[in-house]
Amino acid sequence: MEAPSTPSKSRNPNKFQSSSSSSSHHHSAMARKSSLVKQTIVCSACFVLVLYAFFNTFLHPTDSPPSPLFPDGVVRDDVFVGSTAASKVKVFMYDLPRQFTVGIIEGHARARGSSDFSKSRYPGHQHMGEWYLFADLNRTEEERVGSPVVRVYDPEEADLFFVPVFSSLSLIVNTNRPGADQAYSDEKMQDELVQWLEQQVYWRRNSGRDHVIAAGDPNALYRVMDQVKNSVLLLSDFGRVRPDQGSLIKDLIIPYAHRINSYTGELGVEKRNTLLFFMGNRYRKDGGKIRDLLFQMLETEDDVIIKHGTQSRENRRAATRGMHTSKFCLNPAGDTPSACRLFDAIVSLCVPVIVSDSIELPFEDVIDYKKIAIFVGTKASLRPGYLASLLRGVSTERILEFQKELKQVSHYFEYGEPNGAVNEIWRQVSQKLPLIKLMINRDKRLIKRDLSEPDCSCLCTNKTGFVTSI
Amino acid sequence: MEAPSTPSKSRNPNKFQSSSSSSSHHHSAMARKSSLVKQTIVCSACFVLVLYAFFNTFLHPTDSPPSPLFPDGVVRDDVFVGSTAASKVKVFMYDLPRQFTVGIIEGHARARGSSDFSKSRYPGHQHMGEWYLFADLNRTEEERVGSPVVRVYDPEEADLFFVPVFSSLSLIVNTNRPGADQAYSDEKMQDELVQWLEQQVYWRRNSGRDHVIAAGDPNALYRVMDQVKNSVLLLSDFGRVRPDQGSLIKDLIIPYAHRINSYTGELGVEKRNTLLFFMGNRYRKDGGKIRDLLFQMLETEDDVIIKHGTQSRENRRAATRGMHTSKFCLNPAGDTPSACRLFDAIVSLCVPVIVSDSIELPFEDVIDYKKIAIFVGTKASLRPGYLASLLRGVSTERILEFQKELKQVSHYFEYGEPNGAVNEIWRQVSQKLPLIKLMINRDKRLIKRDLSEPDCSCLCTNKTGFVTSI
Repeated sequence: MEAPSTPSKSRNPNKFQSSSSSSSHHHSAMARKSSLVKQTIVCSACFVLVLYAFFNTFLHPTDSPPSPLFPDGVVRDDVFVGSTAASKVKVFMYDLPRQFTVGIIEGHARARGSSDFSKSRYPGHQHMGEWYLFADLNRTEEERVGSPVVRVYDPEEADLFFVPVFSSLSLIVNTNRPGADQAYSDEKMQDELVQWLEQQVYWRRNSGRDHVIAAGDPNALYRVMDQVKNSVLLLSDFGRVRPDQGSLIKDLIIPYAHRINSYTGELGVEKRNTLLFFMGNRYRKDGGKIRDLLFQMLETEDDVIIKHGTQSRENRRAATRGMHTSKFCLNPAGDTPSACRLFDAIVSLCVPVIVSDSIELPFEDVIDYKKIAIFVGTKASLRPGYLASLLRGVSTERILEFQKELKQVSHYFEYGEPNGAVNEIWRQVSQKLPLIKLMINRDKRLIKRDLSEPDCSCLCTNKTGFVTSI
Repeated sequence: MEAPSTPSKSRNPNKFQSSSSSSSHHHSAMARKSSLVKQTIVCSACFVLVLYAFFNTFLHPTDSPPSPLFPDGVVRDDVFVGSTAASKVKVFMYDLPRQFTVGIIEGHARARGSSDFSKSRYPGHQHMGEWYLFADLNRTEEERVGSPVVRVYDPEEADLFFVPVFSSLSLIVNTNRPGADQAYSDEKMQDELVQWLEQQVYWRRNSGRDHVIAAGDPNALYRVMDQVKNSVLLLSDFGRVRPDQGSLIKDLIIPYAHRINSYTGELGVEKRNTLLFFMGNRYRKDGGKIRDLLFQMLETEDDVIIKHGTQSRENRRAATRGMHTSKFCLNPAGDTPSACRLFDAIVSLCVPVIVSDSIELPFEDVIDYKKIAIFVGTKASLRPGYLASLLRGVSTERILEFQKELKQVSHYFEYGEPNGAVNEIWRQVSQKLPLIKLMINRDKRLIKRDLSEPDCSCLCTNKTGFVTSI
């Protein structure tokens, strides 16, 4: 995957400042239409309509329905909602000191031996969602097509505050660089970020509740999680945060950036001869211990490919081939319940088989994952022969249904597309605003109480769950 | 307060089918404005504007910004959101068996000796919000001005399902009627309601998660709360529900219907010579025990009126006089943390002094209650002399600020107004839809797990709270 334009370019919000093109568009539209108008104007009855249109447009107060000539209700309804309840959410992006943004990109390049930082780009990796959000808000509003939020430059106007720290990149600056310059410290970055935030008046105002911070890597910001836990955190899962630090209510599960190419071919199983494919790290901690057990069990199956492999360009090519030519893709838990492989499988139209009992999934209000994936309980998945025979029993017709649904939702997982992950993340964050405002107002008037338990409001499931979703 | 039109009338959604009145309004407005137009039209430059306005109004496609004459961006943004993301939420209202709606009104009338039910109206009482919601959805869409939801008649189209049971009225059918016909049983009604719901395919589909049920009285539906706890409950407080039955996340705090008249006079303290006013039941259970203690302490203060009194027409008149002529109104907890008196105080522009540590308040995302009320901790309020001297110390200027804010938000507490409580309740319910959908989708794919604690997502406050908000 190609990283988008260089940060130094995109950081200038005024890159395409004037919108003269759109106003000249208006004028030519006017010219085109006025000839039409001349033909119409002959009849005097039309003139009355013109008068009507005139005061309609000029004399009506702006808060009245703008188009009483279309009284079917639809236009009026939408306009009403638009002009009162659903104005776009206003986001202020901090102009962070560069040590929290571009400085981290440079640190990453330096650790890899670079000395010319003018060519440094944000490097492609699975948690680069943080980059796309930063880049998005650095575009002009004209370029931010279909975005549910608008960037504002006056914090007083803002509904929400975005802290564009590259927290996940910071974590891997020194990864796999044992001999590299250890000048960069992620822990130091975290501490300094919190110090900086605590000096900001808008952070202090509501203890960070109306702030949005990306921490895609399950280990990102781990050291200061307690200091930033009031914010809306953009997370991959809740594997490394406590229930009082992160939750489905307050935070947002965001997709990993997929690391293999999207499948652009036809739906179908003709070219997908492998039943089940997995390539990745065989040995993982915690919930990921299941991987080795699955390897032992599935290695002997003829139509299953299960291979150990770490992240590398070559392995990515092999994984692409495998995912594009398999009916099902195995997605066991990693060190935490989520893993980037799920999103690779989705854009490969390779039906995900999820073996990760505590997984939480992005955008689950708009995506019914039961329609695009098969969930299998960890215990059940380890019964000898169970998994392979379960999948062999899925009809071609059913696989095609899965593929169709996968194709329909795959745009949600494309960070680079206009109708993709970035806009959906902002939409989901916007939906949290009423609860954020409620909690902010409520905090202001809370009376000191002797509570035996923390003061929490919860949403619980009463479902006991299944063994498999199919 | 006058109850609105009879239920039998209002149940017909086509009562006022044609909106000819509104179109004739347009014509007279047209006549009034056309003379203005004649004066303006002399200059030929204006004629060009007329032409522009003409094609603007008639030739623009409906999905384009309706008013390019105001190119400041605001209109365009709003329209965009309106026509794509924020379409109105669709609500299906069940046509319940009459024993859950009109039958309860008749039962109430029968217990009071009536035999002619054709004249029975829903009786005015503090939890009559349930009536206004039912009446609202029985109006035509043309009449439901500014509503954020649209009623649909096909359940397949619905986002949410409204169960218009008169659960609070049911509770008081036999109240204060010891000699009355005990044929009516609220408990039987509750049991039968659940039996009926459990036969409905749309209730079973998501275990009631996408259903909305009013239970304004803290005791309403108490017997079947566990069976309806998945639904969005419209409650006055959480005093009688367990944390797994009700929460700020899942449910909605709705206002009591105020029982005394709104104050329509000028802002100011000239005619408000009483410092602090309270009239209500001196003796209450649980948190309400504080009332007797407050009586003992405040009875001796010269500029405080604190009187025992139960609900009656005469007492309501006295309370109206008192609230309209006092600077502050005392709102201690009742049997549960909430009480109708708060809403009487708000519409009286009598600054509420809330002594109820666990109170939850309606619409707190849009209302900053610290701006309209004074919160005092229960313990602090009982320190001798503390409360009266705290209030005497509030400047006239500050009281005026409170009154101004009260006036601005009072419409949220008017069930009978177009821009009032009903529309706000639907708006707030609509905001819960993303979380409802998320939980529905998540429930479908959950894997059986051995959890030591319930599977909950929570939002917590980290504030320790104040002694008083002023």
